[in-house]
Amino acid sequence: MPYLEISKNNFFYNHKIITKAITPKNSEKIAIVLKDNAYGHGITEVATLAKEVGIQTAFVKNIQEALSIAPLFKNITILYPNSLPNQSALKSALNIPHIAFCVPSLESLQDYPANTSIELKIDSGMHRNGITKEQLHEALTIIQAHNLRLKGIFTHNGYGDDLSSAFYAQNIEFLEIKKEALKLCAHFKIPRPRFHSLSSSGAMRASAFNATLPQELQDDLFRIGIAFYGYNSGSLEIPKLKPIASLFANKISTLKLEKGASIGYSGVSTLKTNGSISTYDIGYGDGLFRLREGMELYTAEGYRILPRASMDCISVESDTPKVCVFNDVRAFANAFKTIPYEILTHLHAYIPRIIV
Amino acid sequence: MPYLEISKNNFFYNHKIITKAITPKNSEKIAIVLKDNAYGHGITEVATLAKEVGIQTAFVKNIQEALSIAPLFKNITILYPNSLPNQSALKSALNIPHIAFCVPSLESLQDYPANTSIELKIDSGMHRNGITKEQLHEALTIIQAHNLRLKGIFTHNGYGDDLSSAFYAQNIEFLEIKKEALKLCAHFKIPRPRFHSLSSSGAMRASAFNATLPQELQDDLFRIGIAFYGYNSGSLEIPKLKPIASLFANKISTLKLEKGASIGYSGVSTLKTNGSISTYDIGYGDGLFRLREGMELYTAEGYRILPRASMDCISVESDTPKVCVFNDVRAFANAFKTIPYEILTHLHAYIPRIIV
Repeated sequence: MPYLEISKNNFFYNHKIITKAITPKNSEKIAIVLKDNAYGHGITEVATLAKEVGIQTAFVKNIQEALSIAPLFKNITILYPNSLPNQSALKSALNIPHIAFCVPSLESLQDYPANTSIELKIDSGMHRNGITKEQLHEALTIIQAHNLRLKGIFTHNGYGDDLSSAFYAQNIEFLEIKKEALKLCAHFKIPRPRFHSLSSSGAMRASAFNATLPQELQDDLFRIGIAFYGYNSGSLEIPKLKPIASLFANKISTLKLEKGASIGYSGVSTLKTNGSISTYDIGYGDGLFRLREGMELYTAEGYRILPRASMDCISVESDTPKVCVFNDVRAFANAFKTIPYEILTHLHAYIPRIIV
Repeated sequence: MPYLEISKNNFFYNHKIITKAITPKNSEKIAIVLKDNAYGHGITEVATLAKEVGIQTAFVKNIQEALSIAPLFKNITILYPNSLPNQSALKSALNIPHIAFCVPSLESLQDYPANTSIELKIDSGMHRNGITKEQLHEALTIIQAHNLRLKGIFTHNGYGDDLSSAFYAQNIEFLEIKKEALKLCAHFKIPRPRFHSLSSSGAMRASAFNATLPQELQDDLFRIGIAFYGYNSGSLEIPKLKPIASLFANKISTLKLEKGASIGYSGVSTLKTNGSISTYDIGYGDGLFRLREGMELYTAEGYRILPRASMDCISVESDTPKVCVFNDVRAFANAFKTIPYEILTHLHAYIPRIIV
């Protein structure tokens, strides 16, 4: 059986690093992003660890994720409430006052009954989800008419990982949005909502500047995802973090083979010396990326993983009962020209996640 | 909400093509491979369709998959019984006489109580899972001593997709294994087990030859996976099949943008004309592969999908309420230098599968 070990110590270590790197040094400002099964790490497992370090605010993907961790946090926001709709789950979530629903368009403001907590998503230059600054007036008109509770106004800075001026331009744009929002809230007699816009690398870059703003214009929290899981995103120099997930797989069978033997589909790997080749029980059908010819990847112990990977197993130059496929996913991410998040979120939910 | 439509008509069409392409034209020889959530298509949905066309034999990955479709087939074999072990599920499966367990090593013969149905996996040259021909004698000794029921002896020809002689060499090797197995079965007074070795493309290439062998040396069934799902594997000329899965996603929000606007993470896409860009609710966190800069992919309607994809959404040059992300996964597979199976099996199980 393959399984993911989640290191409690590394999670606690990352929490310390993150708290140090963000201004002010106030744990209450740090929210954890638990969407997509906690970036593949297991939402209930990571939520438990987050609770242990005192995190009170979480962001999740859908209603089911919110319900699964509802007792553990003071504030939960569902970022994509329509991504897996289910009427009875929706009804349950609407009855839990500390669950808020992200609203990315004027039309979706119509989806919710009176007294629902919502957070309004604004586009501040990434041009992905959200309403425009010009639509804020209409949004607040609907919010007041429908008696919705405006818990937050937020955006996502899509340039946190880039050393370009676009990151700062988007921060300035959100500052303008906050000013406009405060004016409109005063006009509509709606209490000031919380503001947030920065994720892992963005928060580390701009939280100090944020703290210099007048109190009412400051972001109130930072949405930290990938940094908790132990990865820096982008090429920025930010403090060293420790990956919290290690993927293990168990042996299926071993063959003693002679030099020159070819292995797996189309026999693309051949043995350079006599040796033992074993199969281990994780494959691309489990969501791991599929090694193909030309790729050089090794287990954490240093055993070569032989291309091509199969749907349900990999062949490894080893005969140990189990192997650690990775304890740092960056080598996989590099081999597949992608980012750690993609390798991690693809791992299927049925793979057990075990806190160690 | 994203969802996968599974086309009943295309499945029935593929079944007809497969039946025509395989010798003898006998539906009973055709087994369906439903492992890994039916290659990502939804195991219960595809099992229902397979039952409707009269398929009686299925291969699954783990115990949970076997239990989920147990009433629908006469014969079910669990290919990787240890891939997701669970004592109570195991107990249930052991009590269902038409469920057999694949045994890939001498050691794993020790795992099962008397009267368990097993299928012995033999390595015939792919050098992946299985015992060697030389270990057959010891395996049958243990099978007799433990009073196990030897339902089948099988192998996997890993060269079905290649126009090389290795495909034929492996078939000849399995023929030798079958001869040896028959001798040993006679010696141990074990009834002749069923034999099988060929999957989609292999069966289409070699089933006619198989039919020329003496009856007792013939393969008794063909394990058809990818062909049922509508894809030819490899570069062989085999009959045209129709993909059965279409992936749809619904709109989250639309922005009207001007020429030159940049979109998404790091702003890697820019608009060539004024236009509407919408986000749709599937991302790489749902198991879809992550579009990155340089990739050109279009929805089935012809709308461009803009890199980079996000964890929970994609940006598309469109403002329709929903888009068909693909109705043939080969363009995605080519863009990511992989095979259709990988794109399909990565899609997370929570995405609804709907038969149409």
